[in-house]
Amino acid sequence: MNDTTAPPYQHSTDEAIAIVGVGLLGGSIAAAVRQRGLGRSVIGVGRDRTRMDAARQAGLIDVGVTNLAEAAAVSRLIVFCTPVERIVDGVREAAVHCRPGTLLTDVGSVKGVICRELADGLPPGVTFIGSHPLAGSEKQGFEYADADLFERRVCVVTPHAETSADSLRRLVAFWSALGLTVVPMSADVHDTALAQTSHVPHVAAAALAAALADSNRPLAATGFRDTTRIAAGDPDLWVGILLNNADEVVGGLDRFAGMLQEYRRAIAARDAPALRQLLQRAKANRDALDSDPNHAL
Amino acid sequence: MNDTTAPPYQHSTDEAIAIVGVGLLGGSIAAAVRQRGLGRSVIGVGRDRTRMDAARQAGLIDVGVTNLAEAAAVSRLIVFCTPVERIVDGVREAAVHCRPGTLLTDVGSVKGVICRELADGLPPGVTFIGSHPLAGSEKQGFEYADADLFERRVCVVTPHAETSADSLRRLVAFWSALGLTVVPMSADVHDTALAQTSHVPHVAAAALAAALADSNRPLAATGFRDTTRIAAGDPDLWVGILLNNADEVVGGLDRFAGMLQEYRRAIAARDAPALRQLLQRAKANRDALDSDPNHAL
Repeated sequence: MNDTTAPPYQHSTDEAIAIVGVGLLGGSIAAAVRQRGLGRSVIGVGRDRTRMDAARQAGLIDVGVTNLAEAAAVSRLIVFCTPVERIVDGVREAAVHCRPGTLLTDVGSVKGVICRELADGLPPGVTFIGSHPLAGSEKQGFEYADADLFERRVCVVTPHAETSADSLRRLVAFWSALGLTVVPMSADVHDTALAQTSHVPHVAAAALAAALADSNRPLAATGFRDTTRIAAGDPDLWVGILLNNADEVVGGLDRFAGMLQEYRRAIAARDAPALRQLLQRAKANRDALDSDPNHAL
Repeated sequence: MNDTTAPPYQHSTDEAIAIVGVGLLGGSIAAAVRQRGLGRSVIGVGRDRTRMDAARQAGLIDVGVTNLAEAAAVSRLIVFCTPVERIVDGVREAAVHCRPGTLLTDVGSVKGVICRELADGLPPGVTFIGSHPLAGSEKQGFEYADADLFERRVCVVTPHAETSADSLRRLVAFWSALGLTVVPMSADVHDTALAQTSHVPHVAAAALAAALADSNRPLAATGFRDTTRIAAGDPDLWVGILLNNADEVVGGLDRFAGMLQEYRRAIAARDAPALRQLLQRAKANRDALDSDPNHAL
Protein backbone atom coordinates (compact mmCIF):
# COMPACT_ATOMS: atom_id res chain seq x y z
CA MET A 1 0.00 0.00 0.00
CA ASN A 2 1.22 3.47 -0.84
CA ASP A 3 0.80 4.83 2.63
CA THR A 4 3.68 2.71 3.94
CA THR A 5 5.89 5.50 2.66
CA ALA A 6 3.79 8.29 4.15
CA PRO A 7 5.39 10.30 6.92
CA PRO A 8 3.77 10.15 10.37
CA TYR A 9 0.82 12.48 10.57
CA GLN A 10 2.43 15.20 12.64
CA HIS A 11 4.94 15.89 9.88
CA SER A 12 2.32 16.23 7.15
CA THR A 13 1.68 19.90 7.71
CA ASP A 14 1.66 20.51 3.98
CA GLU A 15 -1.52 18.47 3.58
CA ALA A 16 -5.17 19.34 3.89
CA ILE A 17 -7.48 17.69 6.38
CA ALA A 18 -11.15 17.35 5.51
CA ILE A 19 -13.83 17.30 8.17
CA VAL A 20 -17.10 15.90 6.83
CA GLY A 21 -19.96 17.14 9.00
CA VAL A 22 -19.03 20.32 10.85
CA GLY A 23 -21.15 20.04 13.99
CA LEU A 24 -20.08 19.99 17.62
CA LEU A 25 -17.55 17.19 17.11
CA GLY A 26 -16.40 18.07 13.61
CA GLY A 27 -16.14 21.72 14.57
CA SER A 28 -14.12 20.85 17.66
CA ILE A 29 -11.71 18.70 15.64
CA ALA A 30 -11.33 21.53 13.12
CA ALA A 31 -10.73 24.03 15.91
CA ALA A 32 -8.17 21.77 17.58
CA VAL A 33 -6.34 21.10 14.30
CA ARG A 34 -6.08 24.81 13.57
CA GLN A 35 -5.16 25.79 17.11
CA ARG A 36 -2.41 23.20 17.22
CA GLY A 37 -1.20 23.89 13.69
CA LEU A 38 -1.66 20.29 12.63
CA GLY A 39 -2.64 20.78 9.01
CA ARG A 40 -1.93 23.21 6.21
CA SER A 41 -5.62 23.74 5.75
CA VAL A 42 -8.85 22.43 7.18
CA ILE A 43 -11.60 21.81 4.67
CA GLY A 44 -15.12 21.60 6.05
CA VAL A 45 -17.60 19.53 4.08
CA GLY A 46 -21.32 19.93 4.63
CA ARG A 47 -24.60 19.84 2.79
CA ASP A 48 -25.66 23.33 3.76
CA ARG A 49 -23.77 26.13 2.03
CA THR A 50 -24.90 28.70 4.59
CA ARG A 51 -23.68 26.62 7.52
CA MET A 52 -20.33 26.06 5.83
CA ASP A 53 -19.92 29.79 5.32
CA ALA A 54 -20.84 30.41 8.94
CA ALA A 55 -18.31 27.82 10.14
CA ARG A 56 -15.65 29.52 8.06
CA GLN A 57 -16.60 32.93 9.41
CA ALA A 58 -16.44 31.47 12.93
CA GLY A 59 -12.81 30.63 12.19
CA LEU A 60 -13.22 26.89 12.50
CA ILE A 61 -12.32 25.93 8.94
CA ASP A 62 -10.19 27.44 6.19
CA VAL A 63 -12.63 26.59 3.47
CA GLY A 64 -16.11 25.13 3.39
CA VAL A 65 -17.39 23.03 0.50
CA THR A 66 -20.57 21.12 -0.24
CA ASN A 67 -18.88 18.80 -2.71
CA LEU A 68 -17.31 15.79 -0.98
CA ALA A 69 -15.40 14.68 -4.09
CA GLU A 70 -13.66 18.02 -4.33
CA ALA A 71 -12.45 17.82 -0.73
CA ALA A 72 -11.50 14.14 -1.03
CA ALA A 73 -9.25 14.83 -4.03
CA VAL A 74 -6.98 17.22 -2.13
CA SER A 75 -6.99 15.82 1.39
CA ARG A 76 -4.57 13.41 2.99
CA LEU A 77 -6.83 12.73 5.98
CA ILE A 78 -10.63 12.76 5.98
CA VAL A 79 -12.58 12.58 9.23
CA PHE A 80 -16.27 11.70 8.96
CA CYS A 81 -18.30 13.36 11.70
CA THR A 82 -21.71 12.61 10.23
CA PRO A 83 -24.43 10.54 11.90
CA VAL A 84 -23.41 6.87 12.01
CA GLU A 85 -25.88 5.70 9.38
CA ARG A 86 -24.30 7.99 6.78
CA ILE A 87 -20.65 7.11 7.37
CA VAL A 88 -20.32 4.00 5.19
CA ASP A 89 -21.84 5.63 2.12
CA GLY A 90 -19.87 8.80 2.69
CA VAL A 91 -16.57 6.98 2.95
CA ARG A 92 -17.25 4.96 -0.21
CA GLU A 93 -18.26 8.08 -2.09
CA ALA A 94 -15.14 9.98 -1.00
CA ALA A 95 -12.71 7.09 -1.44
CA VAL A 96 -13.02 6.92 -5.21
CA HIS A 97 -11.79 10.50 -5.44
CA CYS A 98 -8.87 10.09 -3.00
CA ARG A 99 -5.25 9.87 -3.98
CA PRO A 100 -3.39 6.74 -2.82
CA GLY A 101 -2.10 7.26 0.71
CA THR A 102 -5.25 8.97 1.89
CA LEU A 103 -6.48 7.88 5.30
CA LEU A 104 -10.19 8.04 6.13
CA THR A 105 -11.66 7.72 9.58
CA ASP A 106 -14.82 8.61 11.48
CA VAL A 107 -16.00 9.51 14.97
CA GLY A 108 -19.09 7.29 15.11
CA SER A 109 -20.30 5.87 18.42
CA VAL A 110 -20.70 2.41 16.90
CA LYS A 111 -17.94 0.66 15.04
CA GLY A 112 -18.93 -2.91 14.10
CA VAL A 113 -21.37 -2.25 11.26
CA ILE A 114 -19.19 0.54 9.86
CA CYS A 115 -15.85 -1.24 10.02
CA ARG A 116 -17.17 -4.55 8.68
CA GLU A 117 -18.60 -2.75 5.66
CA LEU A 118 -15.43 -0.77 5.01
CA ALA A 119 -12.88 -3.53 5.66
CA ASP A 120 -12.49 -3.98 1.91
CA GLY A 121 -13.61 -2.62 -1.42
CA LEU A 122 -11.82 0.73 -1.18
CA PRO A 123 -9.45 1.83 -3.97
CA PRO A 124 -5.82 0.67 -3.65
CA GLY A 125 -3.84 2.74 -1.19
CA VAL A 126 -6.93 4.29 0.37
CA THR A 127 -7.50 3.16 3.92
CA PHE A 128 -10.36 3.42 6.38
CA ILE A 129 -9.84 2.84 10.09
CA GLY A 130 -12.67 3.44 12.56
CA SER A 131 -12.25 5.89 15.41
CA HIS A 132 -14.38 6.92 18.36
CA PRO A 133 -13.16 9.84 20.41
CA LEU A 134 -15.03 9.59 23.73
CA ALA A 135 -15.85 13.24 23.94
CA GLY A 136 -18.93 15.21 23.14
CA SER A 137 -21.95 16.79 24.61
CA GLU A 138 -25.70 16.73 24.37
CA LYS A 139 -25.35 20.06 22.53
CA GLN A 140 -25.55 20.32 18.75
CA GLY A 141 -23.90 22.53 16.19
CA PHE A 142 -20.44 23.97 15.61
CA GLU A 143 -21.44 26.93 17.75
CA TYR A 144 -20.52 24.68 20.69
CA ALA A 145 -17.20 23.61 19.16
CA ASP A 146 -14.31 23.58 21.62
CA ALA A 147 -10.68 23.13 20.63
CA ASP A 148 -9.99 21.60 24.05
CA LEU A 149 -12.86 19.08 23.91
CA PHE A 150 -10.44 16.19 23.46
CA GLU A 151 -7.90 17.04 26.13
CA ARG A 152 -7.25 13.98 28.34
CA ARG A 153 -10.04 12.00 26.69
CA VAL A 154 -9.83 8.52 25.27
CA CYS A 155 -10.07 7.72 21.57
CA VAL A 156 -10.79 4.15 20.54
CA VAL A 157 -9.42 3.13 17.15
CA THR A 158 -10.52 -0.12 15.54
CA PRO A 159 -8.02 -1.47 13.04
CA HIS A 160 -8.80 -4.82 11.40
CA ALA A 161 -6.55 -7.65 10.29
CA GLU A 162 -5.64 -5.97 7.00
CA THR A 163 -4.89 -2.54 8.43
CA SER A 164 -1.28 -1.54 7.76
CA ALA A 165 0.86 -0.60 10.72
CA ASP A 166 1.73 2.70 9.08
CA SER A 167 -1.89 3.73 8.57
CA LEU A 168 -2.61 2.90 12.18
CA ARG A 169 0.45 4.85 13.28
CA ARG A 170 -0.73 7.92 11.34
CA LEU A 171 -4.18 7.71 12.87
CA VAL A 172 -2.82 7.29 16.39
CA ALA A 173 -0.50 10.25 15.83
CA PHE A 174 -3.41 12.40 14.68
CA TRP A 175 -5.66 11.74 17.67
CA SER A 176 -2.72 11.93 20.08
CA ALA A 177 -1.84 15.34 18.69
CA LEU A 178 -5.36 16.48 19.64
CA GLY A 179 -4.72 15.50 23.27
CA LEU A 180 -6.44 12.11 23.23
CA THR A 181 -5.16 8.86 24.68
CA VAL A 182 -5.58 6.30 21.91
CA VAL A 183 -6.79 2.79 22.73
CA PRO A 184 -6.90 0.26 19.88
CA MET A 185 -9.42 -2.57 20.07
CA SER A 186 -11.62 -4.59 17.77
CA ALA A 187 -14.81 -2.97 16.54
CA ASP A 188 -16.92 -5.65 18.23
CA VAL A 189 -15.22 -5.28 21.60
CA HIS A 190 -15.81 -1.53 21.30
CA ASP A 191 -19.51 -2.00 20.62
CA THR A 192 -19.99 -4.38 23.54
CA ALA A 193 -18.21 -2.00 25.89
CA LEU A 194 -19.98 1.13 24.63
CA ALA A 195 -23.37 -0.52 25.02
CA GLN A 196 -22.54 -0.67 28.72
CA THR A 197 -20.81 2.69 29.14
CA SER A 198 -22.93 4.82 26.84
CA HIS A 199 -25.85 3.30 24.94
CA VAL A 200 -27.70 1.63 27.82
CA PRO A 201 -27.10 4.67 30.08
CA HIS A 202 -28.56 6.82 27.31
CA VAL A 203 -31.73 4.72 27.18
CA ALA A 204 -31.94 4.78 30.99
CA ALA A 205 -31.58 8.57 31.05
CA ALA A 206 -34.18 8.93 28.31
CA ALA A 207 -36.65 6.65 30.11
CA LEU A 208 -36.19 8.62 33.35
CA ALA A 209 -36.68 11.93 31.55
CA ALA A 210 -39.71 10.64 29.65
CA ALA A 211 -41.31 9.45 32.89
CA LEU A 212 -41.13 12.89 34.53
CA ALA A 213 -44.61 14.32 35.01
CA ASP A 214 -44.89 18.01 34.16
CA SER A 215 -46.20 18.74 37.63
CA ASN A 216 -43.07 17.22 39.18
CA ARG A 217 -40.70 19.40 37.18
CA PRO A 218 -40.11 21.89 40.00
CA LEU A 219 -39.06 18.96 42.20
CA ALA A 220 -36.35 17.75 39.82
CA ALA A 221 -33.09 18.87 41.40
CA THR A 222 -29.41 18.50 40.52
CA GLY A 223 -29.46 14.71 40.84
CA PHE A 224 -32.24 14.30 38.30
CA ARG A 225 -30.62 16.84 36.01
CA ASP A 226 -27.25 15.08 36.06
CA THR A 227 -28.79 11.65 35.61
CA THR A 228 -30.88 12.69 32.61
CA ARG A 229 -28.58 15.27 30.98
CA ILE A 230 -27.73 13.04 28.01
CA ALA A 231 -31.42 12.56 27.24
CA ALA A 232 -31.28 16.04 25.68
CA GLY A 233 -29.12 14.60 22.89
CA ASP A 234 -30.32 14.63 19.27
CA PRO A 235 -32.97 11.88 18.86
CA ASP A 236 -32.05 11.22 15.22
CA LEU A 237 -28.40 10.77 16.10
CA TRP A 238 -29.32 8.32 18.84
CA VAL A 239 -31.74 6.32 16.72
CA GLY A 240 -28.76 5.68 14.43
CA ILE A 241 -26.45 4.73 17.30
CA LEU A 242 -28.89 2.47 19.12
CA LEU A 243 -30.17 0.65 16.04
CA ASN A 244 -26.68 0.11 14.69
CA ASN A 245 -25.69 -1.59 17.93
CA ALA A 246 -29.10 -3.09 18.59
CA ASP A 247 -28.11 -6.59 19.72
CA GLU A 248 -25.60 -5.34 22.26
CA VAL A 249 -27.98 -2.65 23.51
CA VAL A 250 -30.84 -5.12 23.93
CA GLY A 251 -28.54 -7.49 25.83
CA GLY A 252 -27.29 -4.62 27.98
CA LEU A 253 -30.84 -3.45 28.69
CA ASP A 254 -31.78 -6.95 29.81
CA ARG A 255 -28.82 -7.07 32.20
CA PHE A 256 -29.71 -3.59 33.46
CA ALA A 257 -33.32 -4.65 34.00
CA GLY A 258 -32.07 -7.66 35.96
CA MET A 259 -29.91 -5.41 38.14
CA LEU A 260 -32.88 -3.09 38.76
CA GLN A 261 -34.89 -6.12 39.84
CA GLU A 262 -32.27 -6.89 42.50
CA TYR A 263 -32.76 -3.41 43.93
CA ARG A 264 -36.52 -3.71 43.66
CA ARG A 265 -36.50 -7.02 45.52
CA ALA A 266 -34.39 -5.62 48.36
CA ILE A 267 -36.57 -2.49 48.66
CA ALA A 268 -39.90 -4.37 48.47
CA ALA A 269 -38.65 -6.79 51.14
CA ARG A 270 -37.32 -3.91 53.30
CA ASP A 271 -34.06 -5.86 53.28
CA ALA A 272 -31.65 -3.18 54.50
CA PRO A 273 -28.48 -5.33 54.46
CA ALA A 274 -29.09 -6.49 50.88
CA LEU A 275 -29.89 -2.96 49.72
CA ARG A 276 -26.84 -1.57 51.50
CA GLN A 277 -24.65 -4.13 49.79
CA LEU A 278 -26.04 -3.23 46.36
CA LEU A 279 -25.54 0.50 46.97
CA GLN A 280 -22.04 -0.06 48.34
CA ARG A 281 -21.07 -1.98 45.24
CA ALA A 282 -22.45 0.81 43.04
CA LYS A 283 -20.62 3.47 45.02
CA ALA A 284 -17.32 1.56 44.91
CA ASN A 285 -17.62 1.29 41.12
CA ARG A 286 -18.52 4.96 40.74
CA ASP A 287 -15.76 6.10 43.10
CA ALA A 288 -13.22 4.03 41.15
CA LEU A 289 -14.13 6.05 38.07
CA ASP A 290 -13.23 9.35 39.69
CA SER A 291 -10.05 8.07 41.24
CA ASP A 292 -8.74 6.94 37.86
CA PRO A 293 -5.84 9.36 37.27
CA ASN A 294 -6.31 9.17 33.48
CA HIS A 295 -9.84 10.44 33.71
CA ALA A 296 -9.90 13.40 36.01
CA LEU A 297 -13.20 15.21 35.65
CA MET B 1 -50.64 27.58 70.46
CA ASN B 2 -48.03 29.93 71.82
CA ASP B 3 -46.33 30.48 68.53
CA THR B 4 -49.26 32.43 67.15
CA THR B 5 -47.68 35.39 68.92
CA ALA B 6 -44.19 34.71 67.64
CA PRO B 7 -42.75 37.26 65.24
CA PRO B 8 -41.91 36.10 61.71
CA TYR B 9 -38.60 34.33 61.60
CA GLN B 10 -36.59 37.11 60.02
CA HIS B 11 -37.16 39.35 63.03
CA SER B 12 -36.07 36.76 65.58
CA THR B 13 -32.41 37.59 65.41
CA ASP B 14 -32.13 37.40 69.18
CA GLU B 15 -32.75 33.66 69.15
CA ALA B 16 -30.49 30.67 68.68
CA ILE B 17 -30.89 28.19 65.86
CA ALA B 18 -29.84 24.60 66.42
CA ILE B 19 -28.62 22.41 63.59
CA VAL B 20 -28.73 18.74 64.51
CA GLY B 21 -26.27 16.83 62.33
CA VAL B 22 -23.58 19.10 60.93
CA GLY B 23 -22.72 17.40 57.64
CA LEU B 24 -22.90 18.78 54.13
CA LEU B 25 -26.50 19.98 54.47
CA GLY B 26 -26.43 20.97 58.13
CA GLY B 27 -23.11 22.71 57.64
CA SER B 28 -24.44 24.57 54.61
CA ILE B 29 -27.51 25.74 56.52
CA ALA B 30 -25.29 26.88 59.37
CA ALA B 31 -23.00 28.72 56.98
CA ALA B 32 -25.93 30.37 55.22
CA VAL B 33 -27.53 31.44 58.52
CA ARG B 34 -24.29 33.00 59.72
CA GLN B 35 -23.45 34.60 56.39
CA ARG B 36 -26.90 36.17 56.17
CA GLY B 37 -27.02 37.15 59.83
CA LEU B 38 -30.24 35.25 60.40
CA GLY B 39 -29.70 34.12 63.98
CA ARG B 40 -28.01 35.39 67.10
CA SER B 41 -26.11 32.15 67.35
CA VAL B 42 -25.94 28.83 65.55
CA ILE B 43 -25.64 25.79 67.76
CA GLY B 44 -24.33 22.64 66.12
CA VAL B 45 -25.43 19.36 67.65
CA GLY B 46 -23.57 16.17 66.89
CA ARG B 47 -22.51 12.91 68.45
CA ASP B 48 -18.81 13.39 67.85
CA ARG B 49 -17.12 16.01 70.06
CA THR B 50 -14.11 16.23 67.74
CA ARG B 51 -16.26 16.87 64.66
CA MET B 52 -18.23 19.56 66.51
CA ASP B 53 -15.00 21.29 67.49
CA ALA B 54 -13.78 21.08 63.91
CA ALA B 55 -17.05 22.54 62.58
CA ARG B 56 -16.70 25.41 65.03
CA GLN B 57 -13.09 26.00 64.05
CA ALA B 58 -14.19 25.97 60.40
CA GLY B 59 -16.43 28.91 61.28
CA LEU B 60 -19.70 27.14 60.49
CA ILE B 61 -21.24 27.19 63.97
CA ASP B 62 -20.91 29.40 67.03
CA VAL B 63 -20.94 26.54 69.45
CA GLY B 64 -20.94 22.77 69.10
CA VAL B 65 -22.59 20.49 71.63
CA THR B 66 -23.16 16.75 71.90
CA ASN B 67 -26.17 17.15 74.18
CA LEU B 68 -29.38 17.64 72.22
CA ALA B 69 -31.42 18.61 75.31
CA GLU B 70 -29.07 21.46 76.06
CA ALA B 71 -29.42 22.90 72.56
CA ALA B 72 -33.18 22.33 72.49
CA ALA B 73 -33.70 24.31 75.69
CA VAL B 74 -32.23 27.52 74.28
CA SER B 75 -33.21 27.36 70.62
CA ARG B 76 -36.23 28.84 68.89
CA LEU B 77 -35.73 26.84 65.70
CA ILE B 78 -34.21 23.38 65.44
CA VAL B 79 -33.33 21.87 62.07
CA PHE B 80 -32.71 18.13 61.97
CA CYS B 81 -30.17 17.23 59.31
CA THR B 82 -29.63 13.65 60.44
CA PRO B 83 -30.31 10.55 58.32
CA VAL B 84 -34.08 10.09 57.85
CA GLU B 85 -34.38 7.06 60.14
CA ARG B 86 -33.12 9.11 63.10
CA ILE B 87 -35.31 12.18 62.66
CA VAL B 88 -38.49 11.07 64.48
CA ASP B 89 -36.65 9.92 67.61
CA GLY B 90 -34.45 13.01 67.57
CA VAL B 91 -37.41 15.38 67.32
CA ARG B 92 -39.26 13.62 70.15
CA GLU B 93 -36.15 13.68 72.32
CA ALA B 94 -35.56 17.38 71.68
CA ALA B 95 -39.20 18.47 71.95
CA VAL B 96 -39.55 17.70 75.64
CA HIS B 97 -36.77 20.18 76.39
CA CYS B 98 -38.09 22.95 74.13
CA ARG B 99 -39.80 26.10 75.32
CA PRO B 100 -43.29 26.73 73.95
CA GLY B 101 -43.03 28.50 70.61
CA THR B 102 -40.14 26.39 69.42
CA LEU B 103 -40.35 25.23 65.82
CA LEU B 104 -38.70 22.01 64.76
CA THR B 105 -38.11 20.90 61.19
CA ASP B 106 -35.89 18.57 59.21
CA VAL B 107 -34.32 18.22 55.78
CA GLY B 108 -35.12 14.56 55.15
CA SER B 109 -35.67 13.28 51.60
CA VAL B 110 -38.81 11.41 52.68
CA LYS B 111 -41.64 13.06 54.51
CA GLY B 112 -44.60 10.69 54.94
CA VAL B 113 -43.29 8.38 57.65
CA ILE B 114 -41.70 11.29 59.51
CA CYS B 115 -44.64 13.68 59.38
CA ARG B 116 -47.26 11.05 60.22
CA GLU B 117 -45.29 10.10 63.34
CA LEU B 118 -44.78 13.68 64.44
CA ALA B 119 -48.25 15.05 63.64
CA ASP B 120 -49.12 14.80 67.32
CA GLY B 121 -47.70 13.93 70.71
CA LEU B 122 -45.33 16.88 70.99
CA PRO B 123 -45.49 19.15 74.06
CA PRO B 124 -47.95 22.08 73.90
CA GLY B 125 -46.64 24.97 71.82
CA VAL B 126 -43.88 22.88 70.26
CA THR B 127 -44.40 22.36 66.55
CA PHE B 128 -42.83 20.10 63.95
CA ILE B 129 -43.25 20.77 60.22
CA GLY B 130 -41.38 18.68 57.68
CA SER B 131 -39.06 20.32 55.16
CA HIS B 132 -37.05 19.10 52.22
CA PRO B 133 -34.68 21.57 50.62
CA LEU B 134 -33.90 20.13 47.18
CA ALA B 135 -30.21 20.79 47.33
CA GLY B 136 -27.29 18.63 48.16
CA SER B 137 -24.53 16.64 46.65
CA GLU B 138 -23.12 13.15 46.61
CA LYS B 139 -20.36 14.52 48.84
CA GLN B 140 -20.37 14.01 52.60
CA GLY B 141 -19.18 16.09 55.53
CA PHE B 142 -19.29 19.74 56.55
CA GLU B 143 -15.98 20.20 54.72
CA TYR B 144 -18.16 20.51 51.59
CA ALA B 145 -20.57 22.97 53.22
CA ASP B 146 -21.53 25.89 51.00
CA ALA B 147 -23.44 28.95 52.18
CA ASP B 148 -24.84 29.36 48.65
CA LEU B 149 -26.02 25.76 48.28
CA PHE B 150 -29.66 26.83 48.56
CA GLU B 151 -29.66 29.79 46.20
CA ARG B 152 -32.51 29.46 43.70
CA ARG B 153 -33.39 25.96 44.89
CA VAL B 154 -36.79 24.66 45.90
CA CYS B 155 -37.72 23.73 49.46
CA VAL B 156 -40.79 21.59 49.99
CA VAL B 157 -42.56 22.06 53.31
CA THR B 158 -45.23 19.63 54.44
CA PRO B 159 -47.66 21.13 56.93
CA HIS B 160 -50.55 18.95 58.10
CA ALA B 161 -54.13 19.80 59.02
CA GLU B 162 -53.21 20.90 62.55
CA THR B 163 -50.26 23.07 61.58
CA SER B 164 -50.81 26.69 62.61
CA ALA B 165 -50.53 29.36 59.95
CA ASP B 166 -47.97 31.21 62.04
CA SER B 167 -45.67 28.23 62.41
CA LEU B 168 -45.83 27.66 58.69
CA ARG B 169 -45.16 31.35 58.05
CA ARG B 170 -42.06 31.22 60.26
CA LEU B 171 -40.76 28.13 58.48
CA VAL B 172 -41.40 29.61 55.03
CA ALA B 173 -39.63 32.82 56.10
CA PHE B 174 -36.63 30.84 57.30
CA TRP B 175 -36.10 28.86 54.10
CA SER B 176 -36.87 31.91 51.95
CA ALA B 177 -34.20 33.85 53.80
CA LEU B 178 -31.71 31.17 52.73
CA GLY B 179 -32.55 31.78 49.08
CA LEU B 180 -35.00 28.91 48.59
CA THR B 181 -38.36 29.02 46.85
CA VAL B 182 -40.77 27.35 49.26
CA VAL B 183 -43.43 24.98 47.95
CA PRO B 184 -45.95 23.59 50.45
CA MET B 185 -47.55 20.23 49.76
CA SER B 186 -48.72 17.18 51.64
CA ALA B 187 -46.08 14.72 52.82
CA ASP B 188 -47.57 11.96 50.68
CA VAL B 189 -47.63 14.05 47.51
CA HIS B 190 -43.99 14.90 48.20
CA ASP B 191 -43.03 11.26 48.55
CA THR B 192 -44.77 10.24 45.33
CA ALA B 193 -43.10 13.06 43.44
CA LEU B 194 -39.65 12.48 44.92
CA ALA B 195 -39.80 8.78 44.09
CA GLN B 196 -39.97 9.92 40.47
CA THR B 197 -37.54 12.83 40.58
CA SER B 198 -34.93 11.44 42.95
CA HIS B 199 -35.35 7.96 44.44
CA VAL B 200 -35.92 5.95 41.25
CA PRO B 201 -33.19 7.93 39.41
CA HIS B 202 -30.87 7.09 42.30
CA VAL B 203 -31.57 3.37 41.93
CA ALA B 204 -31.13 3.63 38.15
CA ALA B 205 -27.79 5.42 38.56
CA ALA B 206 -26.65 2.85 41.12
CA ALA B 207 -27.64 -0.07 38.88
CA LEU B 208 -25.76 1.47 35.94
CA ALA B 209 -22.68 2.08 38.07
CA ALA B 210 -22.82 -1.41 39.56
CA ALA B 211 -23.03 -2.95 36.09
CA LEU B 212 -19.83 -1.29 34.87
CA ALA B 213 -17.10 -3.88 34.30
CA ASP B 214 -13.67 -2.83 35.55
CA SER B 215 -12.23 -3.35 32.08
CA ASN B 216 -14.72 -0.88 30.61
CA ARG B 217 -13.83 1.90 33.03
CA PRO B 218 -11.55 3.71 30.55
CA LEU B 219 -14.48 3.81 28.13
CA ALA B 220 -16.83 5.56 30.55
CA ALA B 221 -16.95 9.17 29.39
CA THR B 222 -18.79 12.30 30.50
CA GLY B 223 -22.22 10.84 29.75
CA PHE B 224 -21.71 7.84 31.99
CA ARG B 225 -20.19 10.01 34.68
CA ASP B 226 -23.12 12.44 34.69
CA THR B 227 -25.69 9.68 34.62
CA THR B 228 -24.15 7.81 37.56
CA ARG B 229 -22.83 10.71 39.65
CA ILE B 230 -25.43 10.30 42.41
CA ALA B 231 -24.48 6.64 42.81
CA ALA B 232 -21.47 7.92 44.77
CA GLY B 233 -23.85 9.02 47.54
CA ASP B 234 -23.65 7.54 51.04
CA PRO B 235 -25.18 4.01 50.91
CA ASP B 236 -26.42 4.17 54.53
CA LEU B 237 -28.20 7.45 53.88
CA TRP B 238 -29.87 5.99 50.81
CA VAL B 239 -30.92 2.76 52.49
CA GLY B 240 -32.85 4.99 54.90
CA ILE B 241 -34.40 7.08 52.14
CA LEU B 242 -35.38 4.19 49.86
CA LEU B 243 -36.78 1.96 52.61
CA ASN B 244 -38.76 4.82 54.15
CA ASN B 245 -40.44 5.44 50.81
CA ALA B 246 -40.42 1.81 49.74
CA ASP B 247 -43.93 1.51 48.27
CA GLU B 248 -43.56 4.60 46.09
CA VAL B 249 -40.07 3.58 44.99
CA VAL B 250 -41.19 0.06 44.07
CA GLY B 251 -44.11 1.48 42.09
CA GLY B 252 -41.79 3.97 40.40
CA LEU B 253 -39.28 1.24 39.55
CA ASP B 254 -42.03 -0.81 37.96
CA ARG B 255 -43.12 2.12 35.82
CA PHE B 256 -39.48 2.78 34.91
CA ALA B 257 -38.99 -0.88 33.97
CA GLY B 258 -42.10 -0.64 31.79
CA MET B 259 -40.72 2.44 30.06
CA LEU B 260 -37.39 0.68 29.48
CA GLN B 261 -39.29 -2.19 27.89
CA GLU B 262 -40.82 0.23 25.38
CA TYR B 263 -37.32 1.27 24.33
CA ARG B 264 -36.14 -2.33 24.28
CA ARG B 265 -39.05 -3.35 22.06
CA ALA B 266 -38.37 -0.55 19.56
CA ILE B 267 -34.64 -1.32 19.46
CA ALA B 268 -35.07 -5.10 19.17
CA ALA B 269 -37.58 -4.59 16.33
CA ARG B 270 -35.30 -2.01 14.63
CA ASP B 271 -38.35 0.24 14.70
CA ALA B 272 -36.76 3.61 13.97
CA PRO B 273 -39.98 5.70 14.02
CA ALA B 274 -41.06 4.27 17.39
CA LEU B 275 -37.60 4.75 18.88
CA ARG B 276 -37.38 8.29 17.52
CA GLN B 277 -40.72 9.13 19.10
CA LEU B 278 -39.60 7.80 22.48
CA LEU B 279 -36.35 9.73 22.33
CA GLN B 280 -38.11 12.90 21.20
CA ARG B 281 -40.49 12.70 24.12
CA ALA B 282 -37.56 12.25 26.50
CA LYS B 283 -35.68 15.17 24.97
CA ALA B 284 -38.72 17.44 25.13
CA ASN B 285 -39.13 16.62 28.81
CA ARG B 286 -35.45 17.15 29.56
CA ASP B 287 -35.31 20.39 27.57
CA ALA B 288 -38.34 21.71 29.47
CA LEU B 289 -36.36 21.27 32.67
CA ASP B 290 -33.56 23.54 31.52
CA SER B 291 -35.85 26.15 30.08
CA ASP B 292 -37.67 26.54 33.39
CA PRO B 293 -36.63 30.04 34.47
CA ASN B 294 -36.89 29.09 38.15
CA HIS B 295 -34.30 26.39 37.81
CA ALA B 296 -31.35 27.74 35.91
CA LEU B 297 -28.46 25.33 36.22
